[in-house]
Amino acid sequence: MEKILKGNAVIGQSGGPTAAINATLSGVIRGAFEASCIEKIFGMRNGIEGLLGERLVALDDLAADEEGLKILEQTPAAALGSCRKKLPDPHSTEPKDIAVFEKIFEVFEKNDIRYFFYIGGNDSMDTVAKLSEYSKKNQYEIRLIGVPKTIDNDLVGTDHTPGFGSAAKFIATTVREIVRDCSVYTQRSVTIVEIMGRDAGWLTASSAIGRIVDGCAPDYVYLPECPFDEELFFNNIEKSFKEKSGVVIAVSEGLQFADGRYVGEGSQSGSVDVFGHKYLSGTGKVLENMVRERLGCKVRSVELNLPQRCAGHLISLTDIEESVRIGKAAVVAASQGESGVMMTFVRDGSVDYNCNVEPKSVLEIANKTKYVPQEYLTENKDNVTDDCCKYLLPLICGECDLKYSQGLPIHIAI
Amino acid sequence: MEKILKGNAVIGQSGGPTAAINATLSGVIRGAFEASCIEKIFGMRNGIEGLLGERLVALDDLAADEEGLKILEQTPAAALGSCRKKLPDPHSTEPKDIAVFEKIFEVFEKNDIRYFFYIGGNDSMDTVAKLSEYSKKNQYEIRLIGVPKTIDNDLVGTDHTPGFGSAAKFIATTVREIVRDCSVYTQRSVTIVEIMGRDAGWLTASSAIGRIVDGCAPDYVYLPECPFDEELFFNNIEKSFKEKSGVVIAVSEGLQFADGRYVGEGSQSGSVDVFGHKYLSGTGKVLENMVRERLGCKVRSVELNLPQRCAGHLISLTDIEESVRIGKAAVVAASQGESGVMMTFVRDGSVDYNCNVEPKSVLEIANKTKYVPQEYLTENKDNVTDDCCKYLLPLICGECDLKYSQGLPIHIAI
Repeated sequence: MEKILKGNAVIGQSGGPTAAINATLSGVIRGAFEASCIEKIFGMRNGIEGLLGERLVALDDLAADEEGLKILEQTPAAALGSCRKKLPDPHSTEPKDIAVFEKIFEVFEKNDIRYFFYIGGNDSMDTVAKLSEYSKKNQYEIRLIGVPKTIDNDLVGTDHTPGFGSAAKFIATTVREIVRDCSVYTQRSVTIVEIMGRDAGWLTASSAIGRIVDGCAPDYVYLPECPFDEELFFNNIEKSFKEKSGVVIAVSEGLQFADGRYVGEGSQSGSVDVFGHKYLSGTGKVLENMVRERLGCKVRSVELNLPQRCAGHLISLTDIEESVRIGKAAVVAASQGESGVMMTFVRDGSVDYNCNVEPKSVLEIANKTKYVPQEYLTENKDNVTDDCCKYLLPLICGECDLKYSQGLPIHIAI
Repeated sequence: MEKILKGNAVIGQSGGPTAAINATLSGVIRGAFEASCIEKIFGMRNGIEGLLGERLVALDDLAADEEGLKILEQTPAAALGSCRKKLPDPHSTEPKDIAVFEKIFEVFEKNDIRYFFYIGGNDSMDTVAKLSEYSKKNQYEIRLIGVPKTIDNDLVGTDHTPGFGSAAKFIATTVREIVRDCSVYTQRSVTIVEIMGRDAGWLTASSAIGRIVDGCAPDYVYLPECPFDEELFFNNIEKSFKEKSGVVIAVSEGLQFADGRYVGEGSQSGSVDVFGHKYLSGTGKVLENMVRERLGCKVRSVELNLPQRCAGHLISLTDIEESVRIGKAAVVAASQGESGVMMTFVRDGSVDYNCNVEPKSVLEIANKTKYVPQEYLTENKDNVTDDCCKYLLPLICGECDLKYSQGLPIHIAI
C-alpha cells in the first residue's frame, strides 16, 4: 500500500465533446468528494490550455450538490470547456518547451495539486503520458490519471470508451428512423448516411445494430478498415433495387480508395489540425454525386454531423452509468498510488454483459488506434457481422430518465 | 342532422413523412373502429397512387390491437407508405384525366368505400379538393376529409399542423446541444445550422425557443420571410466575436437574397418536383464557404436533414396527443355529414394552452402558404421575437413514454 498523499485535485476535459464526458466529470467529482486524501477540487477551464493560464474553477460546491451532478450527467459537451493543445516533447531542451512544463508544475505547486485527472481521447492520453514523463524528472509528487472519452471507440487497451455507447445509440436509432423514412415511396432512391470516424469504423458499424434486434438497419455498411470498392458499391445498389425501392447505405467519413485517397478528399481544403489529422467531410456528398451521375435515380446524402457527439437527449444508460463509474474509479486508483495510467474497461466473460474497471499504463495506450477487426466485416466487406453487432449491442442499452423543463432537456453550465 | 351513411372507410398518407403522421393514422383508425356507420377499415398503400392500383390493406385487426396502435403512434414515417402524386384538374375533358377519376371512383364503389380520409400537407389537400369537386359531378355518395400533417406548419386555416410540434422539439433540442458543443473551445468558430423550410420559416424559428426557457439558443436566426442581408450577417458575427468565441446561426434552407435568388441555389441542379417546387439544399454550405473566405475563421455547417421529420425518438407529447385527437375528430366530422373539409386546430384564448378541433372547407386551405408573420421577426430581422417563441413553446411540451427493446425504440410495420 502506498503512503497517503494529501492535497488538492484538478480535473480537465480535452478533445472533442461527447454526450457522456460530463458524466465522467461527475464521477471524478463524486470520487474526489469521497476521497479523504483530497481536499479541494478544481476544474481547469479548457483543459491544459486553461491550466497554463491558471484558469481554475472551484468545484467543491457542485460536489455537494446531488441534483446539480445529476443534471451535469445529462448535459452534453465538456462543461469545463475543452482544448486541442498538444504538449511539447518532455525531453526537449528547447527553452520554450521547457517553459511549458515549468509553468504547469508551478501551477500544480502553487495550488498544492497532487491529483490530476484528464478526461479525453487519444491526444489527451498523450498529454498524460508527457506530464508523467516530465514528473519523473522533477521533485514534485503528483498522481496523473487519464480517463478515456471518445465517441470514436478507437483507444487500445479498453473494451470500449465512455461516450461511445451514447453516440452509437443515437446513430443506431437515427439511421433506423432514416430507413423508415426512405421506405415510404415507390420511387427508387438511394440514401447515403455519412457517419463520423476518420480512421476507425466503430460508429458506422453501430448503424447496423438494429439488424440483430428486429431486422431494421441500413442495407450496406462501409467502413474505413476496408478499401472502398466502387464496383461493389454500385453492384449492391442494383441488386437491392430488384427487391426494394429505397436503399440506405451507411458510410464512414474516413472511407478511402485502395490507393489511399480519401473518398471525401476531392471536396476538401486539405487543411490539417494541430495533431496533423486531415479535416474530412463530404464523403456522403461525393458518393451522392457519383450515384446521381451513374444511376440517375433519386439520391440524397445525410451527414449526421455534430449531433452524433452531443445528442444528450438520447444517451445510453449503460454508457452514462459506466462513465460515472470510471470517473469514480480513477480517484480510487489515484488514492491507491496509481499514476501515469489510463482507466480501462475489461469485459468479463459472463453471459450477461459486465465490465470491470482497471488501470493500464498510459504509454501502452497513447498514440495508437484500435480499428474494427477484419473478422467483424462480412465476407463481401459491405457490412458488419452479427458478432460485431453483439459486441456493440449492450453498450447502447438502457434509457436515462432525463429531466426536462418546458419541453427541453435541462442542462447545467459550470 | 345528416342521414347515417353506412359503408367502409379508406385512409391514406401522402407527402413527406413526419414523426406524427402515424399517430394521426392511429387516431383515424381508432375513430373508425368506434364509428357505428363504418364497417371495414382499409388503408391505401402509397396514398392515392395505391388507391389507383387498388392496393388496399385491411386495418380491422390493427384497430382492435391497443398495443399495436400505441407502437404505431411512436413509429416515424408513413406506415402505409406515401406518394407525391398530383391529380389532374377534375374539370378536364382530356380522356386520360377523366380516366384517373373514373378509376378512383370505381375502386370506391367496388369496395363500398363511403369515407375517405387523407392525411397530408398542402398538396394532399389539393387531392381532397379535387376529389370533392369531382364527386359533386357524379352520383356516388362519399365523405372526403383531409387531415393535416406537415412539419413545415405552413397550412393556412389552422393554428398549427400535426407533426410540426415534434419536428420543432427535435430542432430546438438539437440546436441547443449544438450550441453547447460549440462553446467548449476558446478558438473562434462559426457554426451554421441549416433547417428545413423552403418557403416558411416556422421550423427555423423553433430553434430559438430555448431563449425564453433558459437563454440557451442560437445567436442569430434567419428566415426565408425576410431577404437575406449578407452585410447584416457578417456584422452580427463580428459583433458576437467581441463577447464569445463560438457563434451559432440557424438558417432556413429556403433563404433568398433580395433579388429572389436562393442562397443555396448555386450548388443546386435546378431540378423541380412534380408540384414545381425547386429542390433545395446547400444553403448552410454556401454560407459556410462565404464565412471561410471572408473571415478565415473556423467554420462548419450542419444540415439537420431527414432526422427533422423522422426523429420518432424525440416526439412532443402535445403533438402526438393532438395528432391522435385530430384523426379521431375527422371520423366524427365525417359521420356527421362533413365532406370536402380539412380538420383544423383553433387555439382558444385561455392562459393555459388549449386547442379545439374544427372542420374548414378544404378550398380555403389547399395551395396556400402560411408564412411566419413579419411581427414575429425582430426589428433587425436577425431573430424571432419572444412572442413567436411563446406561440411555439406549448407545441413542443411533454415527453412520450416510448417503448424500447434492446436499446432501440420499437417500431411497427403495417
